[in-house]
Amino acid sequence: MRAIDLNCDMGEAFGAWTMGDDAAMLDIVSSANIACGFHGGDPSVMHRTLTLARQKGVRPGAHPGFLDLYGFGRREIRGESMDDIEKQIIYQIGAMRGMAAVVGVPLQHVKPHGTLNTMANEDPVLADTIARALKACAPDLIFMVMPGMETEKAGERHGLRLAREIFADRAYAETGNLVSRRIAGSVIHDADLAADRVLRMLEAGALETLSGARIPVAIDTVCVHGDTPGAVQMAARLRARLEAAGIAVSPLAPL
Amino acid sequence: MRAIDLNCDMGEAFGAWTMGDDAAMLDIVSSANIACGFHGGDPSVMHRTLTLARQKGVRPGAHPGFLDLYGFGRREIRGESMDDIEKQIIYQIGAMRGMAAVVGVPLQHVKPHGTLNTMANEDPVLADTIARALKACAPDLIFMVMPGMETEKAGERHGLRLAREIFADRAYAETGNLVSRRIAGSVIHDADLAADRVLRMLEAGALETLSGARIPVAIDTVCVHGDTPGAVQMAARLRARLEAAGIAVSPLAPL
Amino acid sequence: MRAIDLNCDMGEAFGAWTMGDDAAMLDIVSSANIACGFHGGDPSVMHRTLTLARQKGVRPGAHPGFLDLYGFGRREIRGESMDDIEKQIIYQIGAMRGMAAVVGVPLQHVKPHGTLNTMANEDPVLADTIARALKACAPDLIFMVMPGMETEKAGERHGLRLAREIFADRAYAETGNLVSRRIAGSVIHDADLAADRVLRMLEAGALETLSGARIPVAIDTVCVHGDTPGAVQMAARLRARLEAAGIAVSPLAPL
Amino acid sequence: MRAIDLNCDMGEAFGAWTMGDDAAMLDIVSSANIACGFHGGDPSVMHRTLTLARQKGVRPGAHPGFLDLYGFGRREIRGESMDDIEKQIIYQIGAMRGMAAVVGVPLQHVKPHGTLNTMANEDPVLADTIARALKACAPDLIFMVMPGMETEKAGERHGLRLAREIFADRAYAETGNLVSRRIAGSVIHDADLAADRVLRMLEAGALETLSGARIPVAIDTVCVHGDTPGAVQMAARLRARLEAAGIAVSPLAPL
Repeated sequence: MRAIDLNCDMGEAFGAWTMGDDAAMLDIVSSANIACGFHGGDPSVMHRTLTLARQKGVRPGAHPGFLDLYGFGRREIRGESMDDIEKQIIYQIGAMRGMAAVVGVPLQHVKPHGTLNTMANEDPVLADTIARALKACAPDLIFMVMPGMETEKAGERHGLRLAREIFADRAYAETGNLVSRRIAGSVIHDADLAADRVLRMLEAGALETLSGARIPVAIDTVCVHGDTPGAVQMAARLRARLEAAGIAVSPLAPL
Repeated sequence: MRAIDLNCDMGEAFGAWTMGDDAAMLDIVSSANIACGFHGGDPSVMHRTLTLARQKGVRPGAHPGFLDLYGFGRREIRGESMDDIEKQIIYQIGAMRGMAAVVGVPLQHVKPHGTLNTMANEDPVLADTIARALKACAPDLIFMVMPGMETEKAGERHGLRLAREIFADRAYAETGNLVSRRIAGSVIHDADLAADRVLRMLEAGALETLSGARIPVAIDTVCVHGDTPGAVQMAARLRARLEAAGIAVSPLAPL
Repeated sequence: MRAIDLNCDMGEAFGAWTMGDDAAMLDIVSSANIACGFHGGDPSVMHRTLTLARQKGVRPGAHPGFLDLYGFGRREIRGESMDDIEKQIIYQIGAMRGMAAVVGVPLQHVKPHGTLNTMANEDPVLADTIARALKACAPDLIFMVMPGMETEKAGERHGLRLAREIFADRAYAETGNLVSRRIAGSVIHDADLAADRVLRMLEAGALETLSGARIPVAIDTVCVHGDTPGAVQMAARLRARLEAAGIAVSPLAPL
Repeated sequence: MRAIDLNCDMGEAFGAWTMGDDAAMLDIVSSANIACGFHGGDPSVMHRTLTLARQKGVRPGAHPGFLDLYGFGRREIRGESMDDIEKQIIYQIGAMRGMAAVVGVPLQHVKPHGTLNTMANEDPVLADTIARALKACAPDLIFMVMPGMETEKAGERHGLRLAREIFADRAYAETGNLVSRRIAGSVIHDADLAADRVLRMLEAGALETLSGARIPVAIDTVCVHGDTPGAVQMAARLRARLEAAGIAVSPLAPL
C-alpha cells in the first residue's frame, strides 16, 4: 500500500489567544509543524501541542518563523543579517527540541514558517542560511522543502534529509511556485476539487499548474491548512479520499 | 590550593541595545550566567556570548528569567500558573542548550534570573517549580542556589547537583537572605570592603550578616555584578584579592 | 424611565489573533472598554472597534492595562515604580484618544483593565497613581470605578467624574469586593440568575453579597463579559430583562 | 541673522536599556525626534525626554517607526497593509501628543523613523500613507521630509507644512537620495569635513552629491545622529561651525 504524509501548521496560540482547532487536526494529519514562540506559540502551548501529538501518534516538527509576533511571521522582513536569521532558527529549534524531550517525543522535521519559507523558496542566500542552521543544529531532522525551489536546492547542497511538500489548496504557477494569494483562483476552497488535484499530482508524481501543465517532482508530504474556516472538514475529506484511493496517511519517518 | 568559582550575569543586550561589558567580565569570572531571550538577550547575543565564553575558558550557564522584556525580569510577576513558569524555564534552557551545542561548548549550570530567583528563594512552591523544570530538562546541569533558602531546599529534594552562591556586593540580613536594595547599606560599593568580606566568608564557611553574625553555609561560587558602574573594576579587584590570598578562580565543573 | 449603562471589555484581538465577538456585543452594550495595545489590541483593532462603536451608537472608553501582552494584563505585576505605571496609563489613553479623534468619536470614559484594576481596588497607592494619571491627561473623561473600593476613593480625592460599576456575573464578598475566581460560586453562569441579581441590586441601590447581605452603593453601570462562552447570550438576556423591567440601557454621558 | 534647525533622534532607550546621550544632545540641537515606543522608547522614557526637551527649550516631535522592537525599526518590513501602517502612525502620534500635553510642551513636528522613512522616500504609496495619517491626526504639526523624495511629494499633495531635511554625516547619491550605509564613503566621520559640507549646502541651497554635483533644494533642518561614537562631539562641532558662520541654530517653529 502506498503512503503519504499529511502535515499541518499548529500550536499557534499565544498567551490568552487561541488559533485553529489543533486537537481536531491532530486526528487527521501525520506530521505537525509546531510554532516555536517567535511568530506564534508560547512555552505552554508548545508543551500542550507536543503532548497531544504524542498521544495521537502524530510526528512533531519545529516550525521556526521570523521574530515578529505582531505580524504572525507573515510580514516580509528584509535587510536583516543572515547571521541573525541563522541564530534565530537555531534558537527556536533548540527550544522546541528541549520541550519535546521533556514531553518524551522526538522531533521528526523542521519546516520554516510563513513568509520566511516563501521568501527562502525564491532567495538562494536565505535558503542557504536556513539549511546551514539545520546542518549545525538539527542534521538528524528532516527538512521540509518545496520541490524545485531554493529550499530544496539548499537542503541538497548541505546534505540534509529532505521531504518534498505539495499544497492541497494552493494553485501552482507555471514556474512551479505558488500563485500569490492576491491572485484570484490561487486558493482552492472546494474540498473535493482539492482532493482530486492532490490525487492527480501523487499519481503523476508531478505538480499541476494553473494551465494544467505538469512539472515532475518528488512528493513526500501534503500540506493542509488548519487556520481557515472549513479547514478541518477539508483536511478530513482529503484524508478520506486518499484512503479510499488506497493511499495510507503515515509520517515521514517511523518512530 | 583552594579554589572558588566567580559567576556573573551577562548576554543581556537585546537587538540594538547593549548592556554591560561582557568581554571584560569574561576575563575575570569563571562562570557566565547568560540571558536566554526572555528578560534580555536574543539569539545572536546568546551565540556571541557563548563564543566569547568558550574562547576565554569561561563555563556558560543558562540564566532563565520571567517572560518580561520591558521589565528586564525585575518586575515581580505573581499569579502566573506554576505550569506556565515550568514550561518557560524548559523553553529557555532548551534554546540555550541548542545554541551552546552549535558553538561547541557544553552548559555547566542554570541560575534563575533577577526577581524569579529572589521570589523563589522565599517561595517553596516557585522554587519547587524551578527545580522540577531542571529535573525534567537539565538533570546534568548544576543548579546555582542561595544557601539556606528555598531554592537550595528544592534542589536538594529533587536530587540536583547544587552550587551554593554568595554575593560579593550585597549585604545579608539576619535571616540569611539578601537585604532589599531599597535599604541603605544593602549594596557594598567599595571593592576592597567587598573583597574583605568575601574572604572572611570563604575563610569562615559562613554568611556574614549586617550585624556581623555568621551563618554557616557551604559556598561554591561568588556572584559579581556586571551591569553597574565600576562593575569590572570591582570584579577584577576581587579576583586579584582572592588570588593574593591563595584562592584560585576556577569553574564549578571541569570541562 | 430609569436608565443604566451596560459596559463590556472589547477590542482585545492582536495581530492575527481574534478574541470575543465585538460586533455582537456592540449591539447590546452602551459603553465599550477598548484595549489600548498593552494587554491586547493593536492600532488597527482599536480603529476598527472605535468605528464599530460609533456606527452602533456605543460610547467608547480607554481600557489601559499592564504592559504585558503575554499575560493579557492578568498577571499580577508588583514592584514596578508608580511613576512608570502613571506614564503607561497616560501613553495608552493618548494613543486611544488620538485614534478616536481620527474616527470622529469622543472618548467617554477610562476603565483600568484586568489585574491592574483588581490590584488598584485593594491598593490605595496604585489607585492614586491611576487617578493622578487621569487627572493629568483625561480630566474630561469619566473614571469607571468599583464602589466602596480604593479606585472610587482615589477618584473622589482627585475630583474626577466617576461611574460606579457592578458586575453582572461575579459574586461579591462580605467586604464588597469580588470573590476570587478561584472560589467555587464566584462566577454566575446562568443568565437569568445573573439578571435577577442585577435587578435586585439596582432596585435596592446596593451590592448583594454571597450571604445575601446588602451594601448600599451608587450604581451607574453594569459590566458584562464578552470573552467567555455564552457571553453574548448572557448579555443579551440581561438587556432584555432590564428593558422588560422598564430600565433603559443608555451610555453614561450623552454625545 | 540666518537660522537653521538642528534635529536629532532620541528617547530610544527601552526598559532597562539605554541608548545615546540625550541630555548632551539636547544642549546642541533645536528639535528632538522622540521615539514613540514601537522601535524604541517607552512611556517613562518619552516623559523624561519630553521634560528634558522642555527644560532646554528644544522643540519635540513624534518619531514613529515600524512595530519592531527587536529590529529597532531598521528591518525592512514589506507586505504589510497600508491601512495597518496608517493606524500605527496615528497611534504613536496620539501617545506622544498625550504625553507631551502632560509635560506641558506642544509637539512641533513628526519625522518617520529609520527604515520606515528610508522606504517611504522611495515608495510613493508608503509616503502617501504616512502623509494621510498626518493629515488625519496631526495637520497642525510639521512633517519633516527629504527634499526631492517621495515624502516631500506626498506631504505637498496633502497640504502639510513641511520641513526639508539634510543629513550632516551621510553622502548623497546623484539621484539626491542617501548612499546606502553598506557603500564605503557613505558615512562622514570627520566632524569638520561634515561641517564644511553642511555649510556649503546651506550656502548653495543645494544637496552636494558624491561626485560634487549640486541639486538645488530647500533646506530647513539638518539631521545629526546621537547614537554613534563621537556623535555628541560631531554635533557640537557642527553647531559651533554654524554659529561661527553667522547661522543661528533655532527650531522650525516658535513656541
